[in-house]
Amino acid sequence: MAIWLDQASGDFEARFAAFLTTKREVSDDVNDVVRKIIDDVRARGDAALSDYSKRFDGVDFATVPMRVSEEEIEAATAATSPELIDALNLAAERIERHHARQMPKDDIYEDALGVGLGSRWTAIDAVGLYVPGGTASYPSSVLMNALPAKVAGVPRVVMVVPAAGGAINPTVLAAAKIAGVAEIYRIGGAQAVAALAYGTETIAPVAKIVGPGNAYVAAAKRQVFGTVGIDMIAGPSEVLVIADKDNDPDWLAADLLAQAEHDPGAQSIVITDDAALGEAVMAAVERQLKSLPRTETASASWRDFGAIIKVERLEDSIPLANRIAAEHLELAVDDPEPLIVGIRNAGAIFVGRHTPEVIGDYVGGSNHVLPTARSARFSSGLSVLDYVKRTSILRLGPEQLRKLAPAAIALAKSEGLEAHARSVSIRLNLGD
Amino acid sequence: MAIWLDQASGDFEARFAAFLTTKREVSDDVNDVVRKIIDDVRARGDAALSDYSKRFDGVDFATVPMRVSEEEIEAATAATSPELIDALNLAAERIERHHARQMPKDDIYEDALGVGLGSRWTAIDAVGLYVPGGTASYPSSVLMNALPAKVAGVPRVVMVVPAAGGAINPTVLAAAKIAGVAEIYRIGGAQAVAALAYGTETIAPVAKIVGPGNAYVAAAKRQVFGTVGIDMIAGPSEVLVIADKDNDPDWLAADLLAQAEHDPGAQSIVITDDAALGEAVMAAVERQLKSLPRTETASASWRDFGAIIKVERLEDSIPLANRIAAEHLELAVDDPEPLIVGIRNAGAIFVGRHTPEVIGDYVGGSNHVLPTARSARFSSGLSVLDYVKRTSILRLGPEQLRKLAPAAIALAKSEGLEAHARSVSIRLNLGD
Repeated sequence: MAIWLDQASGDFEARFAAFLTTKREVSDDVNDVVRKIIDDVRARGDAALSDYSKRFDGVDFATVPMRVSEEEIEAATAATSPELIDALNLAAERIERHHARQMPKDDIYEDALGVGLGSRWTAIDAVGLYVPGGTASYPSSVLMNALPAKVAGVPRVVMVVPAAGGAINPTVLAAAKIAGVAEIYRIGGAQAVAALAYGTETIAPVAKIVGPGNAYVAAAKRQVFGTVGIDMIAGPSEVLVIADKDNDPDWLAADLLAQAEHDPGAQSIVITDDAALGEAVMAAVERQLKSLPRTETASASWRDFGAIIKVERLEDSIPLANRIAAEHLELAVDDPEPLIVGIRNAGAIFVGRHTPEVIGDYVGGSNHVLPTARSARFSSGLSVLDYVKRTSILRLGPEQLRKLAPAAIALAKSEGLEAHARSVSIRLNLGD
Repeated sequence: MAIWLDQASGDFEARFAAFLTTKREVSDDVNDVVRKIIDDVRARGDAALSDYSKRFDGVDFATVPMRVSEEEIEAATAATSPELIDALNLAAERIERHHARQMPKDDIYEDALGVGLGSRWTAIDAVGLYVPGGTASYPSSVLMNALPAKVAGVPRVVMVVPAAGGAINPTVLAAAKIAGVAEIYRIGGAQAVAALAYGTETIAPVAKIVGPGNAYVAAAKRQVFGTVGIDMIAGPSEVLVIADKDNDPDWLAADLLAQAEHDPGAQSIVITDDAALGEAVMAAVERQLKSLPRTETASASWRDFGAIIKVERLEDSIPLANRIAAEHLELAVDDPEPLIVGIRNAGAIFVGRHTPEVIGDYVGGSNHVLPTARSARFSSGLSVLDYVKRTSILRLGPEQLRKLAPAAIALAKSEGLEAHARSVSIRLNLGD
């Protein structure tokens, strides 16, 4: 059973603060194991990948090739139901169209002094996309991670996915094909991350690695960061629902459980000004839990991390929501506008009773890779910006240099950097 | 003496590849010490800050207040020469004007189906700015880190700066005043980072920490990452100069030494198609080194990491520059356009013989916080984007939900997420 917090009770602030900082992840310390695997892949390349894949995935590259062939991708696509292909295509189109609007524009201009200034955006040369194996192998995540790279114009996107016994979820391959990813390797774990970062005989290195993974993958991403870029390291999923009294408790319960079924560490929260609704949602969750295939996961999540927070007035939810800084925020209220304006910290906002968060997971068009664990206070969901980088451009002629030189020289000297001052003054024939 | 690499020699590729991966930093493992300091600040707050400041900075908060007073800031500004204040003001104006153009715009729209989609940008609530003490206490860095936050609309910017014996470089305080930073604490090291991340009795926590620092500060930033956001962890500075034959070797030597004087791990590289120019630059560096106050630092940097690379034709510099992915790239050539177009990986490009990199350090207008150690392959310099975050907004009515539901349900079921499917189907009265 989830906890119940009432804003009117004297210990609310203390309990809410404790709730905010509850740890929802047990982080195994796998750093030493991961360090060894990375070193081994750097030293032995493909041979190391072969050994680890045999040991961890039961796949032998002597009989199944490491690289997934074009034929295999075609066959997987053909084996996927037309209904599912249509759904993937619809999702892909919507994601691509929305992300195309995020493409930043170059800004090259001349200022009043005649100084040329510029911000130029270019795509990253090569990106690696990690796709987990097993039950967490989500075709929707392939679309969400690969399509913004395509929109950004990344020339090379490489996918790695562990294949237990050699097999890969065919829908994942179908999604890769739709997203335009053709270079796919049957490898996973820390060894796949190492191969992407440092390269092997078969795999050319990339400049950035994105995508979700288990503790080993997360640790490997942290360890190779610097050599390559990485995306955020995502924690368990969360939803916060702000609800007025006019809601069907079963709709909200379904939304809470859609988060809870992801992971025992997932978190589902309702803030409401109506205690009766809160109680009805509690009851509906218990009822619906019984008929879910992933009932064990969802029960654990709801029991350990679920919460109903009762506030006096709906607007009291704003400061609480800003402190929670949820990955997903649903506004199941008649008048969402004041809430939208007031809430600054949220990965994504789903407005109104007919926008369940799940639409954003698949076909809304916006990205489902969003900041977790309160990091929406300082970071954003995945976007085209994660696949491009900006180069500043500065251009002065002799006249502009003469105008800016005195200030530059004064600042350099005040910082004790004489060679800096000289690099300017020498061009003015002033000596130094 | 720097190394000389000739593209025409048989072992060029091997030597260039080795050069690229040369480590320029000794990273002390200070993680355990830093972990203890952070835990202590979390447990004891201000008392811990007092103890560490006494021990490391020789400043006693019983006699000198932890927070720098308004009077102290005013006095520091008054003590700064008018010439320097003018230089800071000129730099600040130019930085502010350039960064204002970077402010991302909200994009709220309705698509053909009537689905409301949006990207909304908001400023981070509170940002902490670390400023090093001692000789690395640069007023220009205060401007470069604080002004983009101001442009982004960050409501609270907090500065921390260690004060040996209680004193802070007055020009740093003057720069803070010009940048609009009024909340300044006389603390430094890992303890200052911990205080910003977790808060103490005196210091309210921030959501993101930026700014350069020593190995302890860098380790502390890595350790608090997740609780708060951090900027990049910068390595030693670099410059790459692509030069044709028509250059004054002394100008280029001055530019190389302006990088080299920063740090023994700094790196200065010339690529040229003219061997005679390369040799003349080598000689000019040796000559100029003798008359620099920081000659020891600059000599070590040039000796250990400097390089002249001779190519056949100038356009051969393009692939090399893209692999080097320099923080600073100067194009000291007659016709820079083909190089600008070809070079994708660089933190900032300085175009033409009259744009020494140093102008960008101070008064160019663009930011001087740029990606080092080849990270320009996947990341960008500091900008307004580092102080804002994006929230996605999605809004469906019953009609839009009905249209998108079948695809969402098909994808959810294919991923084995029944509660996801139910969260959509329950709103259609289809059951599940």
